[in-house]
Parts: sequence; C-alpha cells; structure tokens
Amino acid sequence: KPSTANKRIEKEQFLHAATPAGQRAAHGQPLPSAAGQDKGEQKEGAARPLSVPGQGTRDHPPAHTALRDRLLAAVVACFKRHGAAAIDTPVLELRETLMGKYGEEAKLIYELQDQGGELLALRYDLTVPFARYLAMNKITNMKRYHIAKVYRRDNPATTRGRYREFYQCDFDIAGQFDPMIPDAECLKIVHEILSDLQLGDFLIKVNDRRILNGIFAVCGIPESKFITMCCSVDKLDKVPWEEVRSEMVGEKGLSPEAADHIGEYVQLHGGLELIEQLLQDPKLSQNKLAKEGLGDMKLLFEYLTLFGITGKISFDLSLARGLDYYTGVIFEAVLLQQENDHVEEPVSVGSVAGGGRYDGLVGMFDPKGRKVPCVGISIGIERIFSILEQRMKASGEKVRTTETQVLVATPHKHLLAARLKLISELWGAGIKAEMLYKKDPKLLKQLQYCEDMGIPLAAIVGDQELTDGVVKLRDVATRKEVDIPREKLVDEIRRRLEP
Amino acid sequence: KPSTANKRIEKEQFLHAATPAGQRAAHGQPLPSAAGQDKGEQKEGAARPLSVPGQGTRDHPPAHTALRDRLLAAVVACFKRHGAAAIDTPVLELRETLMGKYGEEAKLIYELQDQGGELLALRYDLTVPFARYLAMNKITNMKRYHIAKVYRRDNPATTRGRYREFYQCDFDIAGQFDPMIPDAECLKIVHEILSDLQLGDFLIKVNDRRILNGIFAVCGIPESKFITMCCSVDKLDKVPWEEVRSEMVGEKGLSPEAADHIGEYVQLHGGLELIEQLLQDPKLSQNKLAKEGLGDMKLLFEYLTLFGITGKISFDLSLARGLDYYTGVIFEAVLLQQENDHVEEPVSVGSVAGGGRYDGLVGMFDPKGRKVPCVGISIGIERIFSILEQRMKASGEKVRTTETQVLVATPHKHLLAARLKLISELWGAGIKAEMLYKKDPKLLKQLQYCEDMGIPLAAIVGDQELTDGVVKLRDVATRKEVDIPREKLVDEIRRRLEP
Repeated sequence: KPSTANKRIEKEQFLHAATPAGQRAAHGQPLPSAAGQDKGEQKEGAARPLSVPGQGTRDHPPAHTALRDRLLAAVVACFKRHGAAAIDTPVLELRETLMGKYGEEAKLIYELQDQGGELLALRYDLTVPFARYLAMNKITNMKRYHIAKVYRRDNPATTRGRYREFYQCDFDIAGQFDPMIPDAECLKIVHEILSDLQLGDFLIKVNDRRILNGIFAVCGIPESKFITMCCSVDKLDKVPWEEVRSEMVGEKGLSPEAADHIGEYVQLHGGLELIEQLLQDPKLSQNKLAKEGLGDMKLLFEYLTLFGITGKISFDLSLARGLDYYTGVIFEAVLLQQENDHVEEPVSVGSVAGGGRYDGLVGMFDPKGRKVPCVGISIGIERIFSILEQRMKASGEKVRTTETQVLVATPHKHLLAARLKLISELWGAGIKAEMLYKKDPKLLKQLQYCEDMGIPLAAIVGDQELTDGVVKLRDVATRKEVDIPREKLVDEIRRRLEP
Repeated sequence: KPSTANKRIEKEQFLHAATPAGQRAAHGQPLPSAAGQDKGEQKEGAARPLSVPGQGTRDHPPAHTALRDRLLAAVVACFKRHGAAAIDTPVLELRETLMGKYGEEAKLIYELQDQGGELLALRYDLTVPFARYLAMNKITNMKRYHIAKVYRRDNPATTRGRYREFYQCDFDIAGQFDPMIPDAECLKIVHEILSDLQLGDFLIKVNDRRILNGIFAVCGIPESKFITMCCSVDKLDKVPWEEVRSEMVGEKGLSPEAADHIGEYVQLHGGLELIEQLLQDPKLSQNKLAKEGLGDMKLLFEYLTLFGITGKISFDLSLARGLDYYTGVIFEAVLLQQENDHVEEPVSVGSVAGGGRYDGLVGMFDPKGRKVPCVGISIGIERIFSILEQRMKASGEKVRTTETQVLVATPHKHLLAARLKLISELWGAGIKAEMLYKKDPKLLKQLQYCEDMGIPLAAIVGDQELTDGVVKLRDVATRKEVDIPREKLVDEIRRRLEP
C-alpha cells in the first residue's frame, strides 16, 4: 500500500535518473548504516567500490537480521492468532499486471530487460499480486498474510530508512461479508501489534473514501477532480490548511468558497459524537455516499468499542491516503511522541501502519470483472525496525546473532578427536554447540570466544576428564566449573538452560 | 551452487528465447502444479490469461507455504544448532558483481532494464553475494546461513519442479582454519538434515578438485582443458562411461589412451581403503595436487569417522560438479530408492544437496585480491519439497494452513456483540481464535467451518450461556460439549490444547 510515494515524487528529484554508470563514484551515496557498522561508517561522497550492493539497497548483517527476525516473529504471531494463512507470490510479475494500478507511481516500477519471452517487472507492493492471485485462482474468500520484499525505483534516503528494496508485511481479508466486521478486525490487529511491540503511544486515524467523496460533492467539486482533491487533503498531516487551500485554489482551480467549505470538514476529527454530528449535517446527510460511509463508520466504532480499543482510534477527516484503489474505510497508524514538556499535544513521528478497503481491485484481473471485496493492512516494518534499532543502540543492549548454548573446548593439545566426539554427541541430543576450527586452540581463546558471542556454557574435556569419564562444565558468566559424569552431561546442560 | 544448469543448457533449448510477447499463447506452458491444484491442472498449450504469474514462476498457495515453512524450520534449526548467524543480501546485485562468476551460465542471468543509474541484475545464487559481502565488509571469519530466492532464466520444467524463481538454502563457513574441520562439519550438517527430514536412504558423494586435476595431469591432459574435462566427468551420474569417453575422444580431441587412462580412475569409488590405495598409486603419488587432495581426503574421513557418519559417505572419483569456483573438496548428496526387488543396488533419485570448497571467490571482490577460504553447502529445498509433497498426497495427509485453536460461535441471532467481546478476550490471552464475518451465521455453518479448517475447539455463547456466565466449549472431533465458567475458559482451552 504505497501511501507515501506520491509525496516523495513531488518533493524530491531522482538523483540517479540520468547518471551514466561510469560516473557512479562521483554521485556516491553513504553506505547503508547496517553494513557500515562492521567497519565504521563510510564517508559521504567517497568512491563506491565495485563490490557494494546497488544504490538504495543494503546487506543485512547478522545483528540486523536477528533483530528483524524477532520483530517479524511477533507480527506473524499476531497474524496467526487471527487465523491467517500465508501465501507467497513471485517477485517477478508480468508488466501488464502492474500497469494501471499505481497511477503516477508507475514510473517507480523496476522493469526487467527484454531478454526474449514475457515482459517482466519487479513487484511494487503485495496488494496487487494478492488481487491477481485471487482472480487467477477464482478465490472469493481468504484471510492471508504475506511478508516479503518489494521494489521501488524511488529516490533512496537511506539515512531516513527509505530503501529501494524493503519488506512489506501485509494482512488482508477478502470476501463478501457483513459490513465492517473484517474492517474492525484489521484495526484490532494494528492495535495488538503496536501494543505488543511496546513502541510507545500511538494513534490510529480512520476515515472513509465515501465520506471524503461526499464532502467534495456537497462542496460542488466535479467527480473527475475527486482523486486530485484526495491528494491535496492527504498533505494535511505535513502542512497547515492554508497551504493546502492555496494549492486547491491556485493550482487546482477551485473557487475560494468551495475550498473554504472543504476546509470546514476536513479539519475535523473526533469519535462517535463527530459521526453523529455529521449524520445530522443538513448537506452531508443528503449525499448518498457520505451517508453510507458515515453509517458504516458508526458501525465500525460500535465494534471497536466492543474490542475496547476506541481510546487509540480517531475519526479524522483529513486522512485521505494517496492510492487510487481504496473504495471505503481507510486507516493509518502513527506513533506519538512527547517532544518536550512545553508542547501540550503529542507529535506524530510518522506512519507505522496503513491500509483500507479496496473492493474493485480483484475485478480488474477477472475476465468477467467479478469483484471480490477486500480490506487489508500493511505494517511499516522497516520504520518500526529503525525505531527499535535506535532504541537498542541508545540502551547499549546487544542482540545475540547466534543461539549457541555450549562451546566444546579442550585445555591442551592433541584433543581434536575428543572434541569432535563430544560435539557430535551434543548435536545428536539437539544441543546447539560450536567448537573452534583449530586442531589445538588455546583454552583462553576458546573462553574468549564464549564471551564475545554470548555463549553461556563451555564443556571442557582434557586427558584427566577423559580418564575420569567426566566433562568439566563451565558457566561462562560466573566462571564456575563443575565435573559432570559424561552420561549426565546432556541433562545437566538442559537443566542449566531452562528459562 | 548451480551445479546442474550447465547440463540443462547442453540438453535443452530455450523455448522462449525468440518468442514475441504476442505469440505467448501458442507457446503456452502448463501452469505450475501448485497453482493448478486449486482449479485443476491447466492443459498444455491452453491460452494463458493475463493474470498468471510469469513463465516458470509460481504462486505458493497456503498448503504449499505451510509445508515449506515447516521444512525450512527444520533446516534452520540444524543451521542454528551449528552456531550459524543469518544474513540477508539484496535480490538486486550490480551486473558487474555477477559477471565472470558463472561461466557459460551467465546467459541465464536476469538483467534489469537500464532505467538510469546502475546496471542491475537479479542474483543467480547466494554464494557470489556472500563472497561480495565478505570482501566488502572485510570479514575474514564467519559462519552464516541464508535462505532466499534466486533467479535463473533457465528453460522451466515445472512438472519436474524446476522453476525460474526458486529457494536456495545455504550454509557456509568462511575463514582460515585447520584443514578439513569446517569441511567435515558441512558434511555432518547435510547428514543431519537428510536424517531429520526422514527422506529415506541417502548417499553423500565426496571428491576433491585437486584429485581430479591431479588425475588429468598424470593422464597427460593440458591444464587448459581441466575445466572442460570436469564437465565431461560430471556426466557420469547420468550416462555410462562409454558415452563420456567418446565425448572426450570425439568432441574434445583426447587420445583414446588418455581417455582410457582417465576412465580407470574416475570410475572408482569407495572409502578409506581407496584413499590409501591411491596414495600408493605410483603416478598419482608423484603429483603434488593429487597428493594434497588425497591427504586431506584421508583427514576428512578420520573426522567423519569420529562423527560416526562414514556409513553414508562415498569417496567417488566421478563426482566433478559443474562450477568453476570450487578449489578443493566437493560433495553432493543423493537420495537412494529401492526401485524394485530385482535391482540389487539402490538407484539415485537425484541430488538433494551439494557444495564444496571455494577458496578464491572472495578474493575476486577484494581490491587487493586478499583471499578468504570458504566451504559451504546448499540444501536442494525445492526438490526435497516436491518429494515431501508427493508423499503427503500419496498418504492423504493434509497440512493445516492456519493454526486457529478456537472458533467463537453463537447458536442464534443478535449475538454479534457477544462474539466480538469473547473473541477479544481470547486474543488478549494469546489464544488463536476466529469467528465468521457474518452478523448472524447459522450454528451448522460455524461448526462446518471448524471441520473444514481443522479447528479443534468451538466456544459457543447464546443467551442462556450469557445469563449463566458460562461458555459452551465444544470438542469438534468428539462433538462433546461442556459448560465452562467464563473466567475459567482461557485456562480450560490451554489445558485442552496441551500436547
């Protein structure tokens, strides 16, 4: 759900759109910080050696991957708690599949070279492939999640965590159901995930495209301008109303009266009482679309009340979202942050989830245009990752990159065979064990490795231990060593590792 | 590690290399079976609707994804047991990074269109990106695994499980260590994984590029022909020696004597005794490379004896593997299958893992050519998946695609609020719960859903239960229902779901 890319295009230029490959060094970008960690940050403007990955992409080193896996595990646990199945679709899609789905953003699609055969492109999100999948397999009913990389030839801003290759994390419910029940579950899931991850305070803004279109209609805007009006309104989270108004009047040719009229509506936000108020609005209540949208919004708030989560939900008429394909409820979650004590209202630190209802997309892939209503959410896993990473850096907490429980060590020479036999026993018992790949490593080096890697236990065998039929089990943190009869070693290790 | 692609190129033509997009339908390929399952296999030659994924790629529906996730979890557990960290590299690599690494296979690389900026291509395997990663970050020491998709513009043969987008599953040890210790661990890992997955009998063939090169040298072959000789020898798992011999003599211009001489060696296979025999061979023992290789092979067998796995290891001089970059020990695991009672020797059903030592690859990415010795394995997860899938089909076993534990149900109308409240309580307690997205679903439909989806429990609330402060807990399999006090419901569900 590429909500923010439109804004990116407007605000920024392509650095590399016209850069021949040979001049790459001159346009060198800082290396992504993840890779930089291993050897100090590379300076901006430094020559990029041949061996870096492509512009705006990055390698994920072990510490990065371990933290990301932990984060994704929490998200997947929530999706599974709500009964979703996983699917996987190809990274390569037919170009035709992606064409006409992303509006202006289409120019950000990566296309493959014509090497004979079909014309291909890299997927731009997971929503369009999901719709294609449903139509192709004539599935009319499905709750699925999909976590995978997507590709956008966007202007990379790696310092702000914006890459050309990044993970999306989607949950969608497809099918013809009673109004707002799946929509409410989507919001519940966003609420659960943001709570589970302990990211701090957050707010989920909710609106409905039908309400926005109703507002535009009663303000006298022709239908052909609804989408461009949405784009203007969508900027209200970044710029004040005055700027949006002058865009409407100056660039988009609205009368000042119409713009002011729109402004009266789209600056409203609240809860159930605002819905009730708008349902009584003499003009809006006469508009069929707005009435439908408001009725459903009321129903949604009833369900969210039963879920006990309305405290973090705001019905916000300025929320518009950039994409064409939304047809009903739309939402976006932002983290809140108390910037300083003088500011009364908490400030937003950016969107971490978004989504909405798209009832027409599947029909675009069906030969007979049969529709499958869908509603879904996308968790902004890359942004959440950046926040967690910064927080861990600040707190000095280290992620273990391996799960090794025991290092098999020897105190003197000529004991490689003893180590190989013992480690083989441990692996056979399912214990996570390592040894140094040296014939005769020094004991100190082996113990140092435990400390460096956070390995909690060392199992040490020397000639004496072999004679006595024991293994010296060392607690790396306390340095306490105890002889354990060999046949009891596995049980003792398991006992020590119990949480 | 693209061992078999060379063979593919030789044996097969590109169906689509010169097919204009408009003629695609005439060259239609059968749809991948995974997608076909949902709606019956599509006939070969049938028109491909716009909404299919690209040629040789496929969607993975929930049953497929669930089985694959289970399989990958077993592989990852083994990699972690051996202390590996995970890394992730981009799907997009600079074209220059991939150039000159894959020999003839380079023409199978997917290239991206030049849309301004760098020239990019899709990764062809995970080994070259790993080598690039090590060189770029000046890492001289690392044990990592990486499970991800790779891309090859190969002629797809989807019925035989060969796709243009497929998973690789790699474990590699980089670093300067004492000989054959990491190499032995790689073989131990292959042995563990194939045993853990209960795929039936298997054999791991082992050889060394230095031994092969030594053989070629003592048979009078010039060094410039070593690689092409390897390619010929590598066919011995598919065709009899006579054919390989006639290729050597006819196409590659060897003298019949030299070919026969090679033939005496490369048809040998055995264990430690064969190594000893070759170490005594008057000619081979004079060749420096062969002697080194045989000495290391002897050491490897010692270590494998300590691991207790030599029973499934064969020193096989016909194993050559296609890729240029191997420099030492090479290996390949095949599943064995008793075809029928009359055949004495079990027959191979194909390679399910492979790998070897590549000490020169990292140096190709280092500006000063600094080498980092590496050895690694790649588990043929796609082939293993096909075998498991067939086996499950044959046994009629079904994979659950979701993990839902409880369906929250209601026996009559006007109880949506009660369902929403109860399910919210269960989610809050970490219970995996679903409900139908209908205001007033029929009880029969709700219970049918449990049976269809394999959900073990149903929690039913009607007016009576609400009045009594209980929930009716139904065991779906036995149909037994018991009233549970609401405050004890979560505990009772947990108790019932204990393994």
